[in-house]
Amino acid sequence: MATKFVSERNIEFLLYEVFDVESLTQYEYYSEHNRKMFDMVLKAAVKLAKDLLFPIFEEMDRSQPELVDGEVRVHPSVRTIMQEFGDGGWISSRVPFAQDGEQLPSMVADICEFIFASANYSAHAYPGLTFGASHLIESFGSRELYDTYVPRMRAGQWQGTMALTEPEAGSSLADITTMAEPTANGYYRLKGQKVFISAGDHDGVENVVHLMLAKIEGAPAGVKGISLFVVPKKRIDDKGDLISNDVVTSGVYHKLGYRGCPIVQLSIGDKNDCRGWLVGEPHSGLKLMFQMMNEARIGVGMGAAAMATAAYYASLDYSKTRLQGRKLSRKDPGLPPVAIIEHADVKRMLLFQRAVIEGAQSLLMQCSKFVDFQKVLQGEALEKYYLLLEILTPVAKSYPSEMGIQSISQGLQCLGGSGYCDDYPLEQYYRDCRIHPIHEGTTGIQAMDLLGRKVIMKNGQAFLLYINEVQDTIAAAREYEGLDKFANELNDSLTKLQEVTRHLLSIAGQNGPEAFLADATLYLEYFGIITIAWQWLLQGVAVQKSLNNGAKKKDLNFYEGKMYTLRYFFAYELPKTLGLAKRLMDVDPLTVEMQTEHFNE
Amino acid sequence: MATKFVSERNIEFLLYEVFDVESLTQYEYYSEHNRKMFDMVLKAAVKLAKDLLFPIFEEMDRSQPELVDGEVRVHPSVRTIMQEFGDGGWISSRVPFAQDGEQLPSMVADICEFIFASANYSAHAYPGLTFGASHLIESFGSRELYDTYVPRMRAGQWQGTMALTEPEAGSSLADITTMAEPTANGYYRLKGQKVFISAGDHDGVENVVHLMLAKIEGAPAGVKGISLFVVPKKRIDDKGDLISNDVVTSGVYHKLGYRGCPIVQLSIGDKNDCRGWLVGEPHSGLKLMFQMMNEARIGVGMGAAAMATAAYYASLDYSKTRLQGRKLSRKDPGLPPVAIIEHADVKRMLLFQRAVIEGAQSLLMQCSKFVDFQKVLQGEALEKYYLLLEILTPVAKSYPSEMGIQSISQGLQCLGGSGYCDDYPLEQYYRDCRIHPIHEGTTGIQAMDLLGRKVIMKNGQAFLLYINEVQDTIAAAREYEGLDKFANELNDSLTKLQEVTRHLLSIAGQNGPEAFLADATLYLEYFGIITIAWQWLLQGVAVQKSLNNGAKKKDLNFYEGKMYTLRYFFAYELPKTLGLAKRLMDVDPLTVEMQTEHFNE
Repeated sequence: MATKFVSERNIEFLLYEVFDVESLTQYEYYSEHNRKMFDMVLKAAVKLAKDLLFPIFEEMDRSQPELVDGEVRVHPSVRTIMQEFGDGGWISSRVPFAQDGEQLPSMVADICEFIFASANYSAHAYPGLTFGASHLIESFGSRELYDTYVPRMRAGQWQGTMALTEPEAGSSLADITTMAEPTANGYYRLKGQKVFISAGDHDGVENVVHLMLAKIEGAPAGVKGISLFVVPKKRIDDKGDLISNDVVTSGVYHKLGYRGCPIVQLSIGDKNDCRGWLVGEPHSGLKLMFQMMNEARIGVGMGAAAMATAAYYASLDYSKTRLQGRKLSRKDPGLPPVAIIEHADVKRMLLFQRAVIEGAQSLLMQCSKFVDFQKVLQGEALEKYYLLLEILTPVAKSYPSEMGIQSISQGLQCLGGSGYCDDYPLEQYYRDCRIHPIHEGTTGIQAMDLLGRKVIMKNGQAFLLYINEVQDTIAAAREYEGLDKFANELNDSLTKLQEVTRHLLSIAGQNGPEAFLADATLYLEYFGIITIAWQWLLQGVAVQKSLNNGAKKKDLNFYEGKMYTLRYFFAYELPKTLGLAKRLMDVDPLTVEMQTEHFNE
Repeated sequence: MATKFVSERNIEFLLYEVFDVESLTQYEYYSEHNRKMFDMVLKAAVKLAKDLLFPIFEEMDRSQPELVDGEVRVHPSVRTIMQEFGDGGWISSRVPFAQDGEQLPSMVADICEFIFASANYSAHAYPGLTFGASHLIESFGSRELYDTYVPRMRAGQWQGTMALTEPEAGSSLADITTMAEPTANGYYRLKGQKVFISAGDHDGVENVVHLMLAKIEGAPAGVKGISLFVVPKKRIDDKGDLISNDVVTSGVYHKLGYRGCPIVQLSIGDKNDCRGWLVGEPHSGLKLMFQMMNEARIGVGMGAAAMATAAYYASLDYSKTRLQGRKLSRKDPGLPPVAIIEHADVKRMLLFQRAVIEGAQSLLMQCSKFVDFQKVLQGEALEKYYLLLEILTPVAKSYPSEMGIQSISQGLQCLGGSGYCDDYPLEQYYRDCRIHPIHEGTTGIQAMDLLGRKVIMKNGQAFLLYINEVQDTIAAAREYEGLDKFANELNDSLTKLQEVTRHLLSIAGQNGPEAFLADATLYLEYFGIITIAWQWLLQGVAVQKSLNNGAKKKDLNFYEGKMYTLRYFFAYELPKTLGLAKRLMDVDPLTVEMQTEHFNE
């Protein structure tokens, strides 16, 4: 069985050679860090992933959560995981020193999450969600809320969640009906139903803290009437004891995959005794929640890329060790069979996976760097990276999610019949990964976010900044002989992207929002491929720099492998934009025109 | 829960309006049939599928086969299914009257299989495999073998299998090591291991008959030394009793899906008492087996399209009934939510599914028609349709298999979070369908078959016939105003396909087989899209004809839906050929050049 689930060499390459995380230490905020410390953190993350998370990856899948006597039972290791992540400071790794955190750059903290997710996605979700929820309280909650909840969450004692979705309002948050009735005691009385809440209840912690969307009575209709509340499973009574807060787990879903982490239904306030505490201003809930949601979206992209990375190494291991067939140029049956990695078609399948996962991982680290810039820059520069992060978020969520599925499916294919059986982990990855294009906003929602909001925000400023950023990389790549061909290809694609975007905006003006956004999902896919091509070019520049600086001999295969993968992406993936552009430039609004009755029969 | 799994209207359309199955009755061989009878058969198939197969679709998945006391226990309904299929003549529906069969055209018999597979793929595999195995004995076995096995198999009393794969020789049949030692008693003594044998053992029948590949001692190396044997689980002794034939089930796989049907490992001749009977000449086994394999390959394509059809109707049902969100042009939250099918992005996902499944189904029926022509034509015409069938077989196997996965994944996506949970059938379809690109020859194997064998066979004659056949449809479509645009687009694609093919053949000449076949999988995908575009144009011609002949009012929505789906295929799917052609015309042999060590780190 394969034991490698992540490439430490690739992490090092991205962190130090491509994105130069060390350069952050020139800023006051990160000045107490240095490479030695980053390396120690990474080493500790890998150790934790290897020792605690990876060994129970299959086990957590096989013993899925069940609702027993009103509480969700999960794998006993979940308690250990939450404790270890709390004690080790992993839930507070991004938190400022002033709040007893590690104040790590996002680039480093995120790559640790990547390592955890590649070892065991379900397991990593528990502390990950807890950080997101605690960060929301830290950012917008009162001092009292902070003191009550945040330290316990960061210690891994209490689980955090995002409680948005309702039975009759999946992606349409405008329609949520959970109500919050004000009281004279500072809290609200909540009543409603929530569905699909990840880690929404389990016995690996002593309490669960829901960051919940609800409407205060008399609030405006739609999303403008949504408020954000802290709603614990158990609240602290006057004596300091934990008592029930009338949040009942009414069901746990049996899912295709991602079985190590429960997704539950919650019934809130059935006995009219559920208390919630407002976070921020009334009716500003969606805006506040978007902080966590944006983090969670990039987190999903990270998890998707991480999972596909683990699947890639499992398929690579199999392909290197499984002997079968002969090379097409030497088919004599008297010759011994070769490892299947020697077949060009298998190399193609492996390269596809590698191109997707390392491209996606690079984009995610690019986003982490922009998050770090939010901490250290001001004024126009701050605004610039904020806008870049805004426009990249739907891509960073959806590209790894959608392509991760295809990547894992190709990984499974490398194993043939064995990939279909549970003696190998590929079938689990294939089940697990299907959640990514669904949770934290489906791909369709991301697409409307990109084209309907981000591309046009601030008069298209985010889009322009994106174009400039890619062009900077193109200019840098043109300095290297081996890269100019790819720089030119990306430049052509980028010009075409601008043309397509202008065309779609003209449709918006002429035919309204439905026609404009009808193919938003294709636009997202198109934008995603170009974005990953950019990231490959960026990696190519880093490779060339390292080679020019006299790379070590032991690194040459790694760099050559990178260049092959870059070539692969430009030869096999970038051309997919041709077909997408053709459709996007088309004007036949058939999906708008077609009516339900045409689907009859 | 959705109850529709297949469209009878679409079957009627394909059978009578597109492929004119009635025209077969002009030939002597099919002269005793007529439309009324075909309709009765179809009605009976639908009834059987609804009454017996569909109700246990989920149940068979949940209670997967287990090895108990040396025998595989399957769902108790398997016995009923085999009996009903035997008694009802479904296993012998293609068999000539002279052999007590129904002598049905393949078009009708295959569409019945499609109906069964859409209701319950696992269940349909038992009789399907039995027909294939019995057909092999009927075609190439001795009178004695026929009398001993075929009637019992056709009656559903004995299961048939294809036993090819071995632990150390998955796709590489040249390396099988199961040995057959001749004896003086007319039988051979077999010894070896087989893996991944579908329906290879179960308690729903009294015996299992393996059509097994093995090598006779002293046979030539490689595929030229393979012979075909009938190897029953139990053989008939002198008293006419069934006794063990030393075929031991050593394991049953636990699989991602397709769980209603066991896939097993067999240990043959451990006690040196396994008898097998040669079918056909020694060392001709692979050639003979290819009859069953070709049937099985088209059968897999059929099953894949059928399963995706059922998934499509489940997602369509959900999309019509699930209310969520508002139209982008009318976002007032005061308005009631709409059914999600009213969102253009959902219609796009449904159209994608429909374009794939109805396009694939049409191709499969096209193949069935060519099979029927084998029965009634002679000389040059016979050769023509034989060659067309040869070149279309890898496409008919792989297009529905690969695109079925994507189609089902989009179906799951329509349901959002619900699609990921086992309250709905989509998650099962998503698991089940992943087998198709693997069994009966992986997609990579199909690709090498298409480009490395079929395209170049008989000096490219099959390829030329294919081009002519598509051009005939293009010419027919140009007669209709609404179709000429699509006819021209397909014509351009077809011209490009010839250019790409010539280019690849020139690479074969210059750089040898490895470079030639390195991107065979892309070529297969490319060829597949053009082939399905052809089938859509063919359907478009049938629609226009029916409309010109004064279609019934109740059919207008159906025809309009067909035309929307045709437009969808040409607008969204055919453009994918642009990117594929770009890569196929490229000459960078990077997947050939890259070495194993470049995958290190």
